[in-house]
Amino acid sequence: MADQVISGTDLTRLRELNSLTIVSALRDQPPATVTELAKLTGLSRPAVDVIAQGLVTGGWATVVEPDGSSVVGRPARRYRFRASAGHVIGVDVGAHKILAHLADLDGTVVQTARRPVAADADPGERLAALDQVLTTCLAEAGKTAQDIWAVTVGVTGPVDATGRTTLFTPLPGWQTVDVAAHLSDRFTCPIIVENDCKLAALAERWQGAARDADDIVFLLAGMRTGAGLIIDGVLRRGYGGAAGEIGALKAVRWLAAPSHLQSCPGVPTTVSPDDAAAWVFNAARDGNRDARTAVNRYVKDLAVGTAALVLALDPQIVVFGGGFSRSADLVLDPLRRELQKLCLRVPDVRASTLGADSVALGALRLALNEVDRRLFTVGLSAPPAAPRRE
Amino acid sequence: MADQVISGTDLTRLRELNSLTIVSALRDQPPATVTELAKLTGLSRPAVDVIAQGLVTGGWATVVEPDGSSVVGRPARRYRFRASAGHVIGVDVGAHKILAHLADLDGTVVQTARRPVAADADPGERLAALDQVLTTCLAEAGKTAQDIWAVTVGVTGPVDATGRTTLFTPLPGWQTVDVAAHLSDRFTCPIIVENDCKLAALAERWQGAARDADDIVFLLAGMRTGAGLIIDGVLRRGYGGAAGEIGALKAVRWLAAPSHLQSCPGVPTTVSPDDAAAWVFNAARDGNRDARTAVNRYVKDLAVGTAALVLALDPQIVVFGGGFSRSADLVLDPLRRELQKLCLRVPDVRASTLGADSVALGALRLALNEVDRRLFTVGLSAPPAAPRRE
Repeated sequence: MADQVISGTDLTRLRELNSLTIVSALRDQPPATVTELAKLTGLSRPAVDVIAQGLVTGGWATVVEPDGSSVVGRPARRYRFRASAGHVIGVDVGAHKILAHLADLDGTVVQTARRPVAADADPGERLAALDQVLTTCLAEAGKTAQDIWAVTVGVTGPVDATGRTTLFTPLPGWQTVDVAAHLSDRFTCPIIVENDCKLAALAERWQGAARDADDIVFLLAGMRTGAGLIIDGVLRRGYGGAAGEIGALKAVRWLAAPSHLQSCPGVPTTVSPDDAAAWVFNAARDGNRDARTAVNRYVKDLAVGTAALVLALDPQIVVFGGGFSRSADLVLDPLRRELQKLCLRVPDVRASTLGADSVALGALRLALNEVDRRLFTVGLSAPPAAPRRE
Repeated sequence: MADQVISGTDLTRLRELNSLTIVSALRDQPPATVTELAKLTGLSRPAVDVIAQGLVTGGWATVVEPDGSSVVGRPARRYRFRASAGHVIGVDVGAHKILAHLADLDGTVVQTARRPVAADADPGERLAALDQVLTTCLAEAGKTAQDIWAVTVGVTGPVDATGRTTLFTPLPGWQTVDVAAHLSDRFTCPIIVENDCKLAALAERWQGAARDADDIVFLLAGMRTGAGLIIDGVLRRGYGGAAGEIGALKAVRWLAAPSHLQSCPGVPTTVSPDDAAAWVFNAARDGNRDARTAVNRYVKDLAVGTAALVLALDPQIVVFGGGFSRSADLVLDPLRRELQKLCLRVPDVRASTLGADSVALGALRLALNEVDRRLFTVGLSAPPAAPRRE
């Protein structure tokens, strides 16, 4: 048994895999020496040395020279993943706002831009607001569209294979909008469109309330209720992109749930319908009896659809997110009590820690995933510059 | 860039991975030549030659010598996966029967044994029947327990991490039965306990109605209704093993669904409650108006829970299986119509092609998966004999 059983093709493949192993190790680490990287990856020191130098040449890593102040003997140089090699954008096209984050390859947000938009804005107005937010975000970060490696756009409603919300969306006239095509005039990088609940679920697992879990039911709760599902550590879209849309089933009562808040007796006529729920939650917190009844009715209905998801999927945790998560103090305990009555096994129920920013953050995460995916399929031989989208 | 960047450890790992690649290729193929295996795996001919000879020595492959009758030049020898290197058992511990299959590593069933059991049998009686079925199955196959590499036992109710149905099971007194511990007196190989709906779902994807799909909602429909979920090609158990138990939620009406059949007017008093549903389906097929009404009511209720799973998961297909799948001709069309009303996107709805055998077949599949898992984690260096269970 000798080296002749290993072909040249095998060797090239092995070298490429080892390079990716080093990049992965660098991404998850503070700057590391060759010795540390060899220990982390199981590769030999000479192999790591050659590969790390290649990564510096290719723009994927930078050298951190030792300061030489406090160690005995010749201090070792360290390698750091070059997070600024590229940037990504995540943007939430919501009913009431457009919110964009621009981040480096480590996911550190370097710029944010936000702009309100009317709930009844037509697609042209909403797209114009999106364009303005992106222009502001890029300009203030000192970047151009060519510096961006991936863009993810979060929208409301299930997103089909063409990146559109043809089945259903509450955004007026948005069913046929092809937002990826619209943005491809400006960006040459991959543009991904995804459902807001799914992105918010990703964000909570990345930086929020669900960092320790692989099986998560995320609730995006507001005047509409939606769900994003992470199963065995992976966001699940469903065959046609419509996973999590259980709210469409009348029997599970999510459609009716927020109406208890809107129709609560005592809401002042000066409070807009959009703000009625916030008023009711505040009044309930102050002990208003009608408001408490309305909140309890809301939670009772919310619990039926939640129980359906819990019984179907048996998650480790349920995260209560979205606009209503500001009032999680009033919702979580009664929600747990209702689930106790309805479910075989009650998961941990937690409040979102990201609130209204979760959709744009999840969009960032998905854009970073796309960069990683291209890296690990196209490989390191791809230039670290904006690739032409497929 | 030369070979010195590849360490000895890397080479050993690569050789092991290449061996497993060849084993995988052989398992899915008719007997193949070295040239064919090289093409299939992307490995070099010399590498495949060395590895294949090693697999024959290790008992994982056999040589098929060429017959030399019809080819020009020296015919090439072929290698075949040695499916008879080991065997597995899959057994369904049902309410009314115990059914066991014994198969080789290709999943070819070489022996089957079956025995009726009373629905109200206590755990001792049911375990005794299980023991007798296993004894018969082994004896008639000419095998001993030591020839078996993995056993899977299907039971009704969600199976927890200890292999028990502590949350709930309709089998009388079965909540605390540790069937794996019971069988470990006889078998030294891994023993897996799993929920019947999940196993039936696996079986339909392996050999039944769902071979072409990765996103499957499987319905085990009978006097109880259960579900097994395959998402992105993998059977999902949920965090605590209780995925698919949506039937426990009153709002989705699965608990009530079969009562329409049992309470149908006109069922003769000579028909036992267990046989009432079959009588109603037959009468409906013959045009009996009350029976048709009962079937339609059954389907309407069945559709609510099915719609909840479809909306939650957005599967490619729904498979209608279990005992009632014999009457799929009466159920599928009205079920599709109801789903059309209730869902955003209606998946393909199909009848099970495996019927009542699906649980035992899925148990076989899971036992084979366990053999593969050990193979690809413990590796080929593990002896192809019954390993001591973890």
